[in-house]
Amino acid sequence: MASTRIREARESDCGDIMRMIRELAEFEKLSHQVKISEEALQADGFGENPFFHCLVAEIIPAPGESQGSLVVGYGLYYFIYSTWTGRNVYLEDIYVMPQYRGQGIGTKIIKKVAEVALNKGCSQFRLAVLDWNKKAVNLYKFLGAQDLTESEGWLSFRFEGEAMKELAGR
Amino acid sequence: MASTRIREARESDCGDIMRMIRELAEFEKLSHQVKISEEALQADGFGENPFFHCLVAEIIPAPGESQGSLVVGYGLYYFIYSTWTGRNVYLEDIYVMPQYRGQGIGTKIIKKVAEVALNKGCSQFRLAVLDWNKKAVNLYKFLGAQDLTESEGWLSFRFEGEAMKELAGR
Repeated sequence: MASTRIREARESDCGDIMRMIRELAEFEKLSHQVKISEEALQADGFGENPFFHCLVAEIIPAPGESQGSLVVGYGLYYFIYSTWTGRNVYLEDIYVMPQYRGQGIGTKIIKKVAEVALNKGCSQFRLAVLDWNKKAVNLYKFLGAQDLTESEGWLSFRFEGEAMKELAGR
Repeated sequence: MASTRIREARESDCGDIMRMIRELAEFEKLSHQVKISEEALQADGFGENPFFHCLVAEIIPAPGESQGSLVVGYGLYYFIYSTWTGRNVYLEDIYVMPQYRGQGIGTKIIKKVAEVALNKGCSQFRLAVLDWNKKAVNLYKFLGAQDLTESEGWLSFRFEGEAMKELAGR
């Protein structure tokens, strides 16, 4: 039987990651916001001082099966800093291709991120989810996450493009 | 007349920054969550690969005035990574002491963060705000930020402590 493993992404995975970034953005109904390229991912994530880290979920065929292995999900994270608890982890994206859902692959990615975070001395890990994505909301809560927008009232704000340039006086 | 300048924080500012982190957490009614120390800030922000960057607002006395300069606000930020737009900035904390508000010091800090972000090739900057903090909400909107919780439905989630250890299988 085929098995699933979670491993660190390699530079050669960037094509798969880029494809899944687009799929995730489509699912989130926000794909017009995707401006990044495979080349940018390679440069930003796989140089000497990477700006992010990435895990991929890979289906490994059973011995004797003819097809090769297949990357079917990813979790992209980086380290952030809390002025209350110090170094923490932020899971920017987590995605599993629709036909591979319901097998616990997302949970495996989240568990691996928690493991990495603890090994790096982090005490918390944050992520964001869209309010209408009830499956994800329920999974994160089931795994023990708190909804801080609900419990404490945190709202996400963003400056972008022209607003940023105006702020910077350009 | 005294003037205000925004400058990069130095290691010797960590006492002031720690004091203001506590003041901000009290204002946010979340001070039980502050676990950090001045020593941790020094080690984490002022070593070879700092986990964060910090600006401070300093009141410079007019020539001939007897008192020294005074640190009255701070903005603590770090670089994050968007899979849509690449490298971006996150403003984790922004704070101005109550008796120095209403003079545009917070706006000066935000403008400086936008300037740093643009210089580093970022196209966005994110921050979070508590829904009842109407003054801050209104300021960020006035300066051109979007409320993504409102417009797109983003919720902030966090795993911490025991939940993280359980996730990591410990």
